[in-house]
Amino acid sequence: MAGSTFGERLKVTTFGESHGEAVGAIVEGVTPGVELDEAYIQVQMDRRRPGQSSVTTPRKEYDKIRILSGLFEGRTTGTPLCIMLDNTDMRPSAYDDIKSMYRPGHADFTYEKKYGIRDYRGSGRASGRETAARVAAGAVARKLLEHRSVKVLAYTTEIGGIRCGTFDPEVIESNMVRACDPAAAERMIKRIEELAAKGDSCGGIVECRISGVRAGLGEPVFDKLDAELARAMLSIGAVKGIEFGAGFQAAAMLGSEHNDQMDANGFQTNHAGGVIGGLSTGADIVFRVAVKPTSSISVPQRTIDADGNEREIMTKGRHDPCICPRIVPVIEAMACLVIEDHYKRQAALLDQ
Amino acid sequence: MAGSTFGERLKVTTFGESHGEAVGAIVEGVTPGVELDEAYIQVQMDRRRPGQSSVTTPRKEYDKIRILSGLFEGRTTGTPLCIMLDNTDMRPSAYDDIKSMYRPGHADFTYEKKYGIRDYRGSGRASGRETAARVAAGAVARKLLEHRSVKVLAYTTEIGGIRCGTFDPEVIESNMVRACDPAAAERMIKRIEELAAKGDSCGGIVECRISGVRAGLGEPVFDKLDAELARAMLSIGAVKGIEFGAGFQAAAMLGSEHNDQMDANGFQTNHAGGVIGGLSTGADIVFRVAVKPTSSISVPQRTIDADGNEREIMTKGRHDPCICPRIVPVIEAMACLVIEDHYKRQAALLDQ
Amino acid sequence: MAGSTFGERLKVTTFGESHGEAVGAIVEGVTPGVELDEAYIQVQMDRRRPGQSSVTTPRKEYDKIRILSGLFEGRTTGTPLCIMLDNTDMRPSAYDDIKSMYRPGHADFTYEKKYGIRDYRGSGRASGRETAARVAAGAVARKLLEHRSVKVLAYTTEIGGIRCGTFDPEVIESNMVRACDPAAAERMIKRIEELAAKGDSCGGIVECRISGVRAGLGEPVFDKLDAELARAMLSIGAVKGIEFGAGFQAAAMLGSEHNDQMDANGFQTNHAGGVIGGLSTGADIVFRVAVKPTSSISVPQRTIDADGNEREIMTKGRHDPCICPRIVPVIEAMACLVIEDHYKRQAALLDQ
Amino acid sequence: MAGSTFGERLKVTTFGESHGEAVGAIVEGVTPGVELDEAYIQVQMDRRRPGQSSVTTPRKEYDKIRILSGLFEGRTTGTPLCIMLDNTDMRPSAYDDIKSMYRPGHADFTYEKKYGIRDYRGSGRASGRETAARVAAGAVARKLLEHRSVKVLAYTTEIGGIRCGTFDPEVIESNMVRACDPAAAERMIKRIEELAAKGDSCGGIVECRISGVRAGLGEPVFDKLDAELARAMLSIGAVKGIEFGAGFQAAAMLGSEHNDQMDANGFQTNHAGGVIGGLSTGADIVFRVAVKPTSSISVPQRTIDADGNEREIMTKGRHDPCICPRIVPVIEAMACLVIEDHYKRQAALLDQ
Repeated sequence: MAGSTFGERLKVTTFGESHGEAVGAIVEGVTPGVELDEAYIQVQMDRRRPGQSSVTTPRKEYDKIRILSGLFEGRTTGTPLCIMLDNTDMRPSAYDDIKSMYRPGHADFTYEKKYGIRDYRGSGRASGRETAARVAAGAVARKLLEHRSVKVLAYTTEIGGIRCGTFDPEVIESNMVRACDPAAAERMIKRIEELAAKGDSCGGIVECRISGVRAGLGEPVFDKLDAELARAMLSIGAVKGIEFGAGFQAAAMLGSEHNDQMDANGFQTNHAGGVIGGLSTGADIVFRVAVKPTSSISVPQRTIDADGNEREIMTKGRHDPCICPRIVPVIEAMACLVIEDHYKRQAALLDQ
Repeated sequence: MAGSTFGERLKVTTFGESHGEAVGAIVEGVTPGVELDEAYIQVQMDRRRPGQSSVTTPRKEYDKIRILSGLFEGRTTGTPLCIMLDNTDMRPSAYDDIKSMYRPGHADFTYEKKYGIRDYRGSGRASGRETAARVAAGAVARKLLEHRSVKVLAYTTEIGGIRCGTFDPEVIESNMVRACDPAAAERMIKRIEELAAKGDSCGGIVECRISGVRAGLGEPVFDKLDAELARAMLSIGAVKGIEFGAGFQAAAMLGSEHNDQMDANGFQTNHAGGVIGGLSTGADIVFRVAVKPTSSISVPQRTIDADGNEREIMTKGRHDPCICPRIVPVIEAMACLVIEDHYKRQAALLDQ
Repeated sequence: MAGSTFGERLKVTTFGESHGEAVGAIVEGVTPGVELDEAYIQVQMDRRRPGQSSVTTPRKEYDKIRILSGLFEGRTTGTPLCIMLDNTDMRPSAYDDIKSMYRPGHADFTYEKKYGIRDYRGSGRASGRETAARVAAGAVARKLLEHRSVKVLAYTTEIGGIRCGTFDPEVIESNMVRACDPAAAERMIKRIEELAAKGDSCGGIVECRISGVRAGLGEPVFDKLDAELARAMLSIGAVKGIEFGAGFQAAAMLGSEHNDQMDANGFQTNHAGGVIGGLSTGADIVFRVAVKPTSSISVPQRTIDADGNEREIMTKGRHDPCICPRIVPVIEAMACLVIEDHYKRQAALLDQ
Repeated sequence: MAGSTFGERLKVTTFGESHGEAVGAIVEGVTPGVELDEAYIQVQMDRRRPGQSSVTTPRKEYDKIRILSGLFEGRTTGTPLCIMLDNTDMRPSAYDDIKSMYRPGHADFTYEKKYGIRDYRGSGRASGRETAARVAAGAVARKLLEHRSVKVLAYTTEIGGIRCGTFDPEVIESNMVRACDPAAAERMIKRIEELAAKGDSCGGIVECRISGVRAGLGEPVFDKLDAELARAMLSIGAVKGIEFGAGFQAAAMLGSEHNDQMDANGFQTNHAGGVIGGLSTGADIVFRVAVKPTSSISVPQRTIDADGNEREIMTKGRHDPCICPRIVPVIEAMACLVIEDHYKRQAALLDQ
């Protein structure tokens, strides 16, 4: 693979740059005969799209998807779904003054080193725009998981140092930061607004909980379920870490504390985060990802240009002061893709 | 893939169970004409093998490797290297009394749910024994990276709540826990010995630093260098989390703090951990992994048997009270495999 | 993979059905910095498109391609190229009367057995229309091969029992059947016209010659260069066989005849067809494919419907009485993809 | 992949050179819980091994296999099977005089061009010895196919210009050339003996018939069932062509002749060879492969050495004057691997 393909039996290939004509995804291996329409996918797109609230970028991408193939009379045919989003509201000229400078925190420098050429309009292929294609593909996986009664739910637990103290799944979609604690959410929003006013940004933590997964899902050794979820999450540009269950806390625990003991009702605790030996235990799969502060800030920073000269840069444009609210559906999309893919792999293994 | 293969251009497939006849690895895509011998690989094996110190399991696997193919007159031929280790000192009968019970923290339950059948001698395929094959394969990658002047170094930074305060690369291999701070190492060893005496175990944190990697290595989108390192690390059974650079600390940082600014000498900081947009920046690649406490403990625990009856279990056998010292070479091996594979992928991309 | 992806380092994924909205290809792993434009690709599309001569189907697909990503200021960026073709001149209603019957020679029956659902408009995903996406992708590979001075040339050598007796590369594109013998071409055209008048069709043989390939290209064992070319060619719906060099004639030859002996000028003969042990010899790679007669004919045939009832069917619509002329650019496209992919794989192997 | 791995859900990786320590295969993705033992596999090994009759090479490789992993108490565990064969009766010194010359028809020249280094003992990785590992892996697939009532049968239909006129499956294993016509078999054997006496060799044609495959197996577009069978067959060193059903004869047929019409009993003919649109029709899958004359002959031939000097060469050693009898089980093995893999892929697709 050359980096744009994900999955083995449910397989996604994405294409597109932030300021090209379109972005999109091809989804292969979709179970045939499943009811699906554009509206179902659009619901997820709308959760990711910019401009949805006062704490997200005011860029207006309506992210209206079109399904170009793989559907017939309202059902999947088993052939590749091509889902496309036209890029609109592009203002490439906004990037003219930075085309020869490397924006701190962005992939400008690394892309130029890799390819020797760089599409400097926005972040090109490294743009968060690419994740729109993932959300579209993930919605297809989500539909397949509905048939398995698997639920994937992500939510913000920390932003700018403010942590959620309670967990109420009902409030997640009703606050602008998609936090699981409404009181914390209010403080988070206020914090973001303060930082946005200064042109700065902040990071956070997003937790994901996958419930209803059968025990024994995943592959041993290299394709462990947690390994593939980790790869999926770290493939999101802003994510800098992941931990399952007790995670980094496990480092300070004893074996007698960390081991999840069992009784007739199942596991008594879930320090493992629902995965042992790379396979699901049947308990909820729980992981948290570290989200870095948005790199695009309107604060002067030091950098160099393509000739190695030291320069000062101040990113203009319309950006998210905190990406957590919009990364939530991306995380869910990637999780859906991993889980559904592994169900299909398990079916292949057991088939006889 | 069915889980036992890793890598795209430098590709490893492992086989073997803890108490079967042998474990081993096939390494494909090795650059031809490179000098290599069994002794070079054996050095790494000896760093991983049990019984190497008083804080590791006294099981005696000498882990003597044999290269069965792919070498001719002291050089690689470009065809697959098969590296094999016979299993010795097997005492499968030691597992008779637990063959119908699920050991807490182990993959017994999940393997049975996945496969409907379980090799109950030791942990079968889920055993840490499988990582011996990885270390052998990683040594081949390490040899190839020597030609690129890339260095991969892992070391313990925390065990049982005790953290290293200094970083001295020279002391790592000279203390039994492979910690980077000799004073902390002494306290860690004492802590492990106390816990071992009680039949308990503890976890820790291992950091890995990869230096000398060219800027621009990695693939965008799904095959980001950090995503693949994350997958590689989480594929090690005891690892429960990973973070790059500032990692989870990034969640509480501002963009103006986290962004690594540049001057004529390069990056002024390395909060990104050497990877931006999934591509190497040229700075050291730095990540930390959370290592859970060893699951095998000689403390009574509650569990169930295959018929669902509640039972008490106390794992006997010879186990590591803390796996950090022996996981260090495994982490290095996996890192070597990822980095060398990406060099080869980059060569393919640019070739014309 | 789920069948729609081809290649390892230069990788193509196609999507689209004959009567959906669009077909297209995503090409990953393209060398960055290479000059490319839509016109270059369009040349190949025009060689494949219907309606180009009196012996091809009069269906009017202008096959105008658009590049949606991966290009910037006239050069490839190294990110995925998405190349799309809108479907036009669709007349799905033409298929209403056959929607519950299986057309002989078509994949109607097999698709329904595989998927349990079938897009009965045209041949859906099994349509020759899909090969338009391959030709587009192949043109990208062809551009990369130009930099290597590799040439890929296919041509008709037999149609309807009429064989070429001479080989003149200059005449291939100037006769409607793309034959290498102008006199034979005239007779072939006449034969096709006769059959078309009766509503029948005929098959043929197409030869492909790849010159300029370095010696030692290909991978051993399963990914032999001839094995991958065979897969590529048999993946074209109408192809029923392939042979390299002496091919099936080799069955009646002696070792002393078939072995290609060498002298200071290289190989004295090319019975191997340019591939020995799965690797290129440096001589021209030569193979021939058997092309079956077009399945769509306007002659009454027996079949069954979805309920198992015996029926008579007569395929209406606008079809090619012989697909050889239009399969020539498809064969070249697939050959280009295989060869360029193997150059990139070789670069990965040798890189150090 | 680097060439040594085959399959997607049932996946085989082979290793080993003709004169190294061992050859072997790792088989991943095997259905767990299936009864299997070494004796079952050994039956197939014995059909391929040298020295089994007067028309095969007298080299004595008893090809005794050992299963090193993946089996427990007589059943597969779902983890990788490692099957190994030690190399015995090696006489590498026999190759000393040819180590700097390229044997005509062999991969000596091409391997040296690819790798820049060559294991000149026998044919190294390009040796037919490697196919022993495939036969072992194929036996595992054969066992899985037994549960599906799928039968794979290959047999010689032509050797040295002598063709079978009848088809009697009962006689195949009872004549030394594995021909389907006992009278032709006698003449073939005589022909081979004559050629062997002169130090020469001959080629032939082997047909393979796969029965009991469900309709709709295979993947569309690039992973068509016939495309993957073609790749599998051409990956066998001596194979130079393949054709399905009417094959190259289709080139001279009319559509009205070639189309397989259907009635209530199914397909009336099988010109397609059991595959339409890349998917199985439910009829027998029938293909023929062209087998070249053995390259190793004891007849003087012209060649060059590594310095480009013209030389005369006469291959000594113990070789098969015709490889058809021993290639039969290799063809069956590869066919078994392809079919079982596709059953598993189909299970993944339909799973919900």
